[in-house]
Amino acid sequence: MNSFTEIPGGVTAPSSFLAGSIFAGIKPANTSKPDMAFVVSAIPAVAAGTFTTNKMKAAPVRVSQANIRSAETRAIVANSGNANACTGVIGIDHAKRMTKATAKALGLKERQVLVCSTGRIGVPLPIAAMEKAIALSPQVIAPDGSHLAAQAIMTSDTKAKEIAVEMELHGKTVRIGGIAKGAGMIDPNMATMLCFVTTDAAVSKKLLQQAVSDAVEQSFNRITIDGDMSTNDTVLVLANGAAGNPPLRDGEPEFDRFQNALNHVCCALARMIVEDGEGVSKFVTIQVRGAKSRQDARKASEAVANSTLTKCCWFGGDPNWGRVMDAIGYSGARVHEETVDIYYDGLIAVQNGTAAATPFSKLKEVVANPRFTITVDLHMGEAEYTVFTTDLTTAYVEFNMGE
Amino acid sequence: MNSFTEIPGGVTAPSSFLAGSIFAGIKPANTSKPDMAFVVSAIPAVAAGTFTTNKMKAAPVRVSQANIRSAETRAIVANSGNANACTGVIGIDHAKRMTKATAKALGLKERQVLVCSTGRIGVPLPIAAMEKAIALSPQVIAPDGSHLAAQAIMTSDTKAKEIAVEMELHGKTVRIGGIAKGAGMIDPNMATMLCFVTTDAAVSKKLLQQAVSDAVEQSFNRITIDGDMSTNDTVLVLANGAAGNPPLRDGEPEFDRFQNALNHVCCALARMIVEDGEGVSKFVTIQVRGAKSRQDARKASEAVANSTLTKCCWFGGDPNWGRVMDAIGYSGARVHEETVDIYYDGLIAVQNGTAAATPFSKLKEVVANPRFTITVDLHMGEAEYTVFTTDLTTAYVEFNMGE
Repeated sequence: MNSFTEIPGGVTAPSSFLAGSIFAGIKPANTSKPDMAFVVSAIPAVAAGTFTTNKMKAAPVRVSQANIRSAETRAIVANSGNANACTGVIGIDHAKRMTKATAKALGLKERQVLVCSTGRIGVPLPIAAMEKAIALSPQVIAPDGSHLAAQAIMTSDTKAKEIAVEMELHGKTVRIGGIAKGAGMIDPNMATMLCFVTTDAAVSKKLLQQAVSDAVEQSFNRITIDGDMSTNDTVLVLANGAAGNPPLRDGEPEFDRFQNALNHVCCALARMIVEDGEGVSKFVTIQVRGAKSRQDARKASEAVANSTLTKCCWFGGDPNWGRVMDAIGYSGARVHEETVDIYYDGLIAVQNGTAAATPFSKLKEVVANPRFTITVDLHMGEAEYTVFTTDLTTAYVEFNMGE
Repeated sequence: MNSFTEIPGGVTAPSSFLAGSIFAGIKPANTSKPDMAFVVSAIPAVAAGTFTTNKMKAAPVRVSQANIRSAETRAIVANSGNANACTGVIGIDHAKRMTKATAKALGLKERQVLVCSTGRIGVPLPIAAMEKAIALSPQVIAPDGSHLAAQAIMTSDTKAKEIAVEMELHGKTVRIGGIAKGAGMIDPNMATMLCFVTTDAAVSKKLLQQAVSDAVEQSFNRITIDGDMSTNDTVLVLANGAAGNPPLRDGEPEFDRFQNALNHVCCALARMIVEDGEGVSKFVTIQVRGAKSRQDARKASEAVANSTLTKCCWFGGDPNWGRVMDAIGYSGARVHEETVDIYYDGLIAVQNGTAAATPFSKLKEVVANPRFTITVDLHMGEAEYTVFTTDLTTAYVEFNMGE
């Protein structure tokens, strides 16, 4: 029972948000695909976010981590085609020039602007051309510009990723919208994931950060193989209060409903990212329950999701539960072989650590599906964890062999 | 400057060792490929070993871990085609029946026999047929049977893996021999790796265990992605003292030379396993130096070696040092982006965390080679670590998609 409704409009569905895109010449000129995106709140907003935990943080990540401390945030400027990562002090200067140019164009303070980049690593940005493009941002942002912005942050994504939801809170209509980009690589551990969320809810900066951290833990972190991230991964959320609701308070039912809707937005975008991975043929949910601790459940589920061998056999339609057992065994989770049960879409494959009675042909039927769930019950405790992953295909290797 | 010489003969090069193979019907009958191997010391020997750290230990691992505590060991019985893993109490019974049948055939005590299995997981052994085959073991073992035994433990290996070395210790000729099997999968983390080493050196059980642990740490553990192992991985070493040397003592130069030769045997077999991985087109050495701790160096080198993205681009001949930087960044090692240098076969690709002056075409030439070394200098300390890995190819995925 959800207390929200999906609506169109993406990041410009919430009131008083504008978005748009422009071609600055970062991507090849012959494509003329927009390579810069803007998301702007017409009125002061508070911002919250989560950033990559990778020690090699791209320059825009470092600049946004500084600027997000500002009490007010008004705009996000992002580019695709170049990650501005491993670019040293020049990279930091370029990221700052992006925020400075955006602030100048929109009449804001530099620290009110957040910045993101995605694309190639190790190459300086064509910053002069970008500054010229940014100067035109007031002309390209519009109250229905979400889709253009979603397109402009795409790299090897095949589809723009957008969602918005609407709900009533304290008698006011509140909206949350989001856009995201994933990558050709199915593993967000190493691909750049960007997600921009807007809401017209009134909420304090502190409570917004709590809500975002919770939502990311339920969504983007579940598609991350080992909790690590790429050099550029960033989730940014702006809340401008234009809905006119009394500011949300922790513990009240309205906040829970807001959190629930925010989780939905982030989970939907995370799922779109996984499903749009290059060379992906299957979407696989790994659910570990009965673990001694949540950490154990997480280790076990991520080991199964991360095994190249399990992923290859899903691609081939081979259930191969032995590889699942093997991954659980080396995951570091506390397990007893004798108490492990494994199910494929509810069909028992392993009981007490050995082959169950389900015919192999039935398990093959499950793994032939484009979506299926492998459930592991460790019978060691009450904790559980779920991750979302994909198969490993020849197309994936071909896509990522470079050059 | 090595103080040993390579010689032919594998595990039967050392004095008073016999080996052989037989077809027991575990592998398909139409192949008639021998599927059981025996390695026997004609005189009492001491044994040492290392076993998988996977929590899902195959039945033979459990039985061998018990039997290796015996003061004397005389024989190893191994089969391919079936891993006897995830087989519950029946599996334990079958592994014990293998040792019992071998002891009976060779006139030994049950606890003097070690047992290994490799192959499919989750299927009971055809134990009655195997017992009949084992009864014939006295007729198939011979002082030149190493190669037959090496062939009989192969699964998807394309080549039998054997080596032997000879050296003088205290005026006596001492030999060490070994056979091993790897797998179609290039990652011993999940494939079964078996290695049997024999020596006619006189050495105490305790000192032999120390030597084996050291040798495994320098060899097989370096080709393991994260230090974990499959359900069946086993390294067994028998020392029977037939060379007549005074028992080796820790700290004496002769022991260091023995250790050095044992390391060479294990490293050579480990390298053969990696190079024989299904679908492997490149052998890549990842060397991390200048780390704050050995653990940091290990984390960083394994993250680079384990990244599907780095492995895919090596396959494609793309240097893509950005993916190396990314992997180092999420490895958990303590690093500062600004101090990282990366070399491809000595050519500098990254200096102080950003692109160095070496032309991209030169780096491409390195990665086009079937063997190359990526060296990462973190400039954080003095510690270093090296791992050996491969590329990730479409052939690998095809081989492992099963069915």
